[in-house]
Parts: sequence; structure tokens; C-alpha cells
Amino acid sequence: MSRSYLDPPLPIVALATVAGKSALAVLRASGKGCLELLAPCFSRGEKLLAAPGHSLVHGHFVDPGDSEAIDEVLVAVFRAPASPTGEDQFEISCHGSPVIVRRILSVLETAGFSPALPGEFSFRAFANGKEDLVGAEAVDELVSAPGEAARAEALRRLGGGLSRRLEMARKTMLGLLAEAEVRLDYAEEDGSPSELFPAERLRSFRDKLSSLSASWSIGKLHSEGVRVVIAGSANAGKSSLFNLLVREERAIVSPEPGTTRDWIESGFELAGIPVRLVDTAGLREGTGTVEAIGMDRSRSLAAGADVVICLADATLGLGPADEELLARRADAIRAWNKVDRSDAAPAPRGWIALSALEGRGLPELLGALEVRLRELESRAGGLFGSGSDGRASGSTLPLARRGEAAIPSSSDTAVFDFVVASPRQKRLLDRAVASLEGTLAIVEAGPDAPILLDAAALELRDAADALGELTGEIASPEVLETIFSGFCLGK
Amino acid sequence: MSRSYLDPPLPIVALATVAGKSALAVLRASGKGCLELLAPCFSRGEKLLAAPGHSLVHGHFVDPGDSEAIDEVLVAVFRAPASPTGEDQFEISCHGSPVIVRRILSVLETAGFSPALPGEFSFRAFANGKEDLVGAEAVDELVSAPGEAARAEALRRLGGGLSRRLEMARKTMLGLLAEAEVRLDYAEEDGSPSELFPAERLRSFRDKLSSLSASWSIGKLHSEGVRVVIAGSANAGKSSLFNLLVREERAIVSPEPGTTRDWIESGFELAGIPVRLVDTAGLREGTGTVEAIGMDRSRSLAAGADVVICLADATLGLGPADEELLARRADAIRAWNKVDRSDAAPAPRGWIALSALEGRGLPELLGALEVRLRELESRAGGLFGSGSDGRASGSTLPLARRGEAAIPSSSDTAVFDFVVASPRQKRLLDRAVASLEGTLAIVEAGPDAPILLDAAALELRDAADALGELTGEIASPEVLETIFSGFCLGK
Repeated sequence: MSRSYLDPPLPIVALATVAGKSALAVLRASGKGCLELLAPCFSRGEKLLAAPGHSLVHGHFVDPGDSEAIDEVLVAVFRAPASPTGEDQFEISCHGSPVIVRRILSVLETAGFSPALPGEFSFRAFANGKEDLVGAEAVDELVSAPGEAARAEALRRLGGGLSRRLEMARKTMLGLLAEAEVRLDYAEEDGSPSELFPAERLRSFRDKLSSLSASWSIGKLHSEGVRVVIAGSANAGKSSLFNLLVREERAIVSPEPGTTRDWIESGFELAGIPVRLVDTAGLREGTGTVEAIGMDRSRSLAAGADVVICLADATLGLGPADEELLARRADAIRAWNKVDRSDAAPAPRGWIALSALEGRGLPELLGALEVRLRELESRAGGLFGSGSDGRASGSTLPLARRGEAAIPSSSDTAVFDFVVASPRQKRLLDRAVASLEGTLAIVEAGPDAPILLDAAALELRDAADALGELTGEIASPEVLETIFSGFCLGK
Repeated sequence: MSRSYLDPPLPIVALATVAGKSALAVLRASGKGCLELLAPCFSRGEKLLAAPGHSLVHGHFVDPGDSEAIDEVLVAVFRAPASPTGEDQFEISCHGSPVIVRRILSVLETAGFSPALPGEFSFRAFANGKEDLVGAEAVDELVSAPGEAARAEALRRLGGGLSRRLEMARKTMLGLLAEAEVRLDYAEEDGSPSELFPAERLRSFRDKLSSLSASWSIGKLHSEGVRVVIAGSANAGKSSLFNLLVREERAIVSPEPGTTRDWIESGFELAGIPVRLVDTAGLREGTGTVEAIGMDRSRSLAAGADVVICLADATLGLGPADEELLARRADAIRAWNKVDRSDAAPAPRGWIALSALEGRGLPELLGALEVRLRELESRAGGLFGSGSDGRASGSTLPLARRGEAAIPSSSDTAVFDFVVASPRQKRLLDRAVASLEGTLAIVEAGPDAPILLDAAALELRDAADALGELTGEIASPEVLETIFSGFCLGK
């Protein structure tokens, strides 16, 4: 990998779909002259070169080395600047065969394409002004979203509404600064900090950015999920419940085999929130030391869980392990399993009567779990004050579609009703807030010494810079490289 | 799955790419009215409805239930009859997120789409005359092709050249039959079997179909691969060689992670042919019974292998296990490993000096392996007489591209220079050959009894029918259902 994002934008290519056997695979290419490079590798080169943007050309992908046809393909043509990256672009839709994908990539590399770096398409979209940094990051976040809430929030960031608001806030700050600097240059003119830096507007910015920063806890909850531990006595049916929860949801959630492979390995999604389910079963089997280690492990898992499900065996009643667990986690959801058995005792008050075997009581259990998830969301909301309305906060926020006039006429009064999910964005928002606090402290202290005016201006400048870095307006090449190289290939 | 392929062709939808996280995922839909059903789920419904075939429309996929935008997507529009299935069709290219794919599928199902059955798109292409049965099967074979040779052969079948030749042979046979039947109806007219059924032409058909049937061994070799076993004394470095072969090729073959996951798990491709590599290492470790079982296992693996690599330890020389192996498999490739070691003896004549550690001797070993693969190919060729020319037979055959005039003017003289890979096709070819033999036996026996004429006609009819079943001209619904249900989803 000797190439860098900052090299001249030569034609690049990468597989854009998941590798493997399927009906279709898509290879994506971008760069000036990419269609001219593709033409000799395509049975209908002239048709391709004459194709307008956003059209599809059908033909064979051919190895120009030996004129062998590799596959029957469909080429989607995009013309600069009306393309995702802002450059000439194409996508080859071929049969989903690893052998074909490999061969096409190899022919294109021989033809002069470089293998794209991770995130290089996004980088070019950013470099050509098709997407700001928040939007580019949102593409990656969208793909990685483990649930509906995270997806909805990422899509809103992708829409550009948040960036536009931040950019407008930054421009307003820069306007105030310019005005202040003019006044400071004319030393004869009087000016107090509070006159030059209107505290009302600065406080409004501070509050909104601070609330946006606080939304990060919700974003984190939605993107990392909630850890739910099933605990209880041995043989209470923990594994059955685990399988029931995971399988039941899988069956609803993904009819196609393979979907769940790497993103929901032992979990499911409930009301838009990803649940990472931990089964403590098996840990207590055996005797002596092994059992003791298992007990310890169960205890610490339960202690670290966001939600605990205490599963008791209805045929045995509460054991000492259950009592101990409930003493430590009084907030556990209580499930009384094996009510299908004839020797089962009736469920005590506050316990959900469950049969993990037959699925009885599952809706009640899921209902109780959803209530806990909402509580966690609402607690994460904090300053942000959303997420406690019984739906995923991401889903209930009004959605700004790209191109719509999502910004109220006065940027000062617009609430930043977005959720951020990236630690980078949170860090920069916190920096902007701290700098605004710095300006406000000086302004509110009052005395109009020129040295203080300079200090207030510096703080405000830093707040504006933090927002500029956030949207990518003033990000350094190193920062950009770090961000985009974290993306996955083909994006 | 209460739906059937033979139900009215309502709009269907399926994920066409491999499920998982990636830059892109593609959902495919087909059926009359499918664009009208999609329009309310798309932010630019009117633009979509007005879009010409083979064009791309950019917008948001929207849940019409709550007007929530699910993703920013690109819709490829295809209009009947110029679409792959012959029906109105679209493909949604969305961000490659399982959450998004799931949601879009769920919204489309609510909108009236049915989840496609496996192979249902191919079935519709077949039902609408866009693809014959050989071509439809070729799509599936193309995706499953484990190497270049199998890919090239499947693509040629997809091109339709083989089907056209078979169809022409069938029509010629039907022409002969029609003529014979007219003559048979006019009982007064004289006619001997040899007059009505020209033996020369029937023999030509028989030979070509028989040669095509024989090509199946090559097709099988290319699609199932060759089994190569590394055997030899314990600690000779078998696992190192195994890893070297698999890893080395993997590194060359698939720069993107995940490609090799399910199709080349412990193998690689050499000159277009898939090699299934078996490592017998580890089998002889331990002592006593376990060791004995291991030895037996190694022996039977080596006995059943297409190619054996006998790996000897150059620091120890030949052990009794090596001697025994070479006595049983004199055809083994001999590799003298650990020549990097200072205490290594020089390689005896006929042995490849190898260092699995440093990779020395690997090109020679791969060269020797390729020679064996060619021998196997050439042996499989048999009657077919191809595959011994030093390249994968599939690659050297002239390629018929779709739409080109690939059929010589006289179908009788055209050699069927294709490779078949499906047991179904082989079975039907064999049936046609046997029936032609039946006709020929009667014709060549000579006496012109009407009863024999009828019998000859019946045999010829069966040969024509076998070809009709092969291309799908006269396949029964049950047969079709069996064939297409074996395809994978989205195809």
C-alpha cells in the first residue's frame, strides 16, 4: 500500500458487495478516464463511451489480453460531476462468482486501475465536495448500524442537515469574530466584550452544541447495543431461553441464510435497539473448582450487564443462587420457567410465567425487556432529553431528506435534533462547548480590557475551528487519512 | 413456501448479493406492475414511473407506513420485454447494511411483493423465452464455478450456442420424422428404413452427442476439482507445505478478506482447475492405537487421491512409511523437504528439492502438479479429445458470444465443442445417443417391414425428445420445478 488518499486521483476499483457466491456482485470504479480504460475490456466499448450518465449498458466483460469473455455484465455509467464521487464512475454488475470477481479485478488492474484504498471512494466524494466529513462518516456508520435506531440516526447525518447547521453556526461565529476584529483594529473606538460578543447568542450556541454532544450516549447505546445476561440456577433452562430469543428473532428477522453471520452472532434487535445476549449457562456445570470459577464468572457477568434476566426453575422454586442474584440485582427481570411442567409451582407475584420450551410467556418477557431498554435510552438521553417517548429516539425524530429545506431560517433558533455516534464528533463538540464557555466567562466578567477582548476572540475562534474540523472544512490531511482508512473496502 | 414457480407471475423480490456488511447490497425484483408497487416506497415515484428501461434513478427508499426514509438508494429500471426476466424489473442498490436490507425487504413485502423462490428469476427468464434450460442452468453453474475452466465452460453454455446446436439437431430429427410419417401414412408407397432414415446423418448426430456426453468427465473435473493428498513421514513438514500452498495462492488470488471463506476452504486453483488439498499431517501423532488408526487413515486418503505428494524429510532420508507409500503410489510427486537445513542430504534423482519454510522449490512443485492435472484432464477427455493441449480445455475453446453467429450454416457438420457439467444434461445426452443407436440398428439391419419403420421412428422420436428436455422445449412442470428449486436465492 504505497498509495495514499492524497495522491492524484487515478482510476481505482474495488469489490463493493460482500465476497462470496450469490446471484450478483458489484465492482465499483472511479477516476478521470475510467470509462476509457474500461472500454477495451468491454464487448461494446463504443456504446459504453457514448452512454450518458445514470444509464446501464449490457455486454460482456472481456480480457483484452486474449479476447476471452469473462462474464455477461451490466455496466452502470456515471458522469462527472453528477456522480457519487464527483468523478467519472462506473459499476460493473456481474454474476456473483468469486472466480469472476477475481478475474475482472485482475484484468482491470492490468488495464491501469489501482485497487481502491479502504474508504477511498468516500474520500473522493469528500474531496470533490459531494459529501462533508459528517456525511462521509455517516455512510460507514450506516453500513455498520446494528439496529433500526442507529440506521435512522446515521441516515439523518448522511442527509447533511446536521452539517449544514454546524456550518451555519461556524459561519455566524466567524462573522462575529470579523466584526470584533474590525472594532479591535480601530483602537480609538470603544467596545466592551459584552458588546462585541453577544452573550445571548453564544449561550444559545453553547446549549445546542452541548445537547448535541450529550446525544452521543444515545448514539453509543444504539450502535453498541445493550448487554443482557440470562442468569439463574443450573438447569433453569437458560440455554433454551437463549436459543429461543436468538432463534425466534432470527427467524422473523432474516429469512435468508448467512445474514446473521457476523453482526448479530448471539443477539437480536428489539424495537430498533441491538441486544447482545449473554448466556451464562454451562458455566456452573461440573463440580469443585470449575463450578466455583463458573459461579464467579456468572456473578461478574450479571454485575456488568445492562439488564439481567433471572431465570428460575418453576419445578424447584428459588435456589440460594437466585436469591443471591436478586439481592445484588434487584432490577433483574424475573422469569419463572418450565410452567409447561405438571410439577411446576405457580409463578410468584412479579415473575413472568414462562415456558422456554413452548415459547409461552415470551411476549411478556420481550415486553419487560423493551421497557428496560427504553429506560436505558432515556437515562442515556440526559441533557438531550429524548428517547423516553416509548420509541427509539432515532425513529421519532422528524427526518430531513437530502435536498429538503431542513434548516429553519434563523440558524440561531434551530435545535440540533440529531444524534451523533462518533467519538471524534463528540470530542470536537466538547471542545467547541468548552471554548464557548471560555468566551462567555470573559464576556460575563465584564471589564473591557483589550487583552481580554483578544482572549475572548481566541476562544471563539477555537470553537469555530472545532466545528470546521467536525464537518471537514478545515481538517488536516493526516486527520482525513486516519478517518477514511478506518472505512471498509469499496466505500 | 406455499407459492410455486407455476403460479401467476406476481411481483417478487430477493436480495441478490451476499448478505453482510459492505459498501453495497442489491435487491432484485421482477413482475408486471412491480415499478408501480415500488413507486409509493420511493421518494421520487413519478421520476421512477417515467424512467425508461436501462436507466438509473436516484432517491430515497421510504416506508410509506410512516414516511420514514430507510436509505439513499439507486434504482435500476428495466422494462419488459428488454429485461433479464422478460418482465418489468428493478434492482435497488442500497448501502450494504443487513438492517437496511431487512427493512427494505419487509416494506416491499408489505407493499405486495412476494419473497422470490430460489431460482425464480431464472425460471421467469426461461418461461418468457429469454433463456433456455441449458442457459438457465449455466447461470447457476457460473456462480458456483470453483475455477477458471469451469467458469469459461459455463459462460459458453450461457451464451446459448450449445442450445442452438441441440435445438437444430432436434429440429432436423423432427423433420426426418415428419417426412417418414407422411411416407408411412401412404402405405402404398415403398420405403425402406435406410431410405427414410439416412444412416449417415444419424451416425453424425450420434457421434457428436456422444462426444458431448463424454465432455461431462472434464466438466466434472473442472467443477468438482482434483483431490491432492500430501503424505509422508511424521514431521516431514506436511502442514507447512499445506499452509504454504494454500496461503501462497490465497495471497495471490484474493486480496479482499472473506473471498475464500466458503469456496476454497482448504484448496487453491492451479491453471484454471480447482485443487482440493488434503493434509494428512497430525494423523500419525501420538502412539499405539491412535497412531495405527492414523496410519490407516493416511493410507486410505493416499489411495483415494487423484494426486499424491510424497513429502520426505531431507534431514532423515526415506523412512519405511515413505517406502510403503511409494510402493503403493509410484505416481506420487516426490518432494525432498527441509533443504534449508544444514544437515539435509541432497535430493535424490526424481525428487524436487524443497524448503516449505523458505518457499524454495515451490515453483517446481507447482509445475509438477500442473503436469498431473493436465494428465487427469486429458484422461477425462477420452472421446472428447480435448484438454491435453497444455491449457485448461475450457479456456482454449473458441468462445461464442451471445448474439454472434456462432452456428455454422450446416448444423450437421458443426462439432459440439462444448463441455457439459450437469448430470441431468449428461443423462439426456446418453438417452439421445442410445435412441439413435436404436434407430441405426434397425436401419442397418435393413428389411423394410412397416413394423420396423414404426420402431425406428419411435426411437428417433425419443432421441429428439431427450434433446427437447435438455433445452427445456418440452420439459414438464415437475422437472422444471426440480431444476429451478436447486438454484440459490436471488437468481
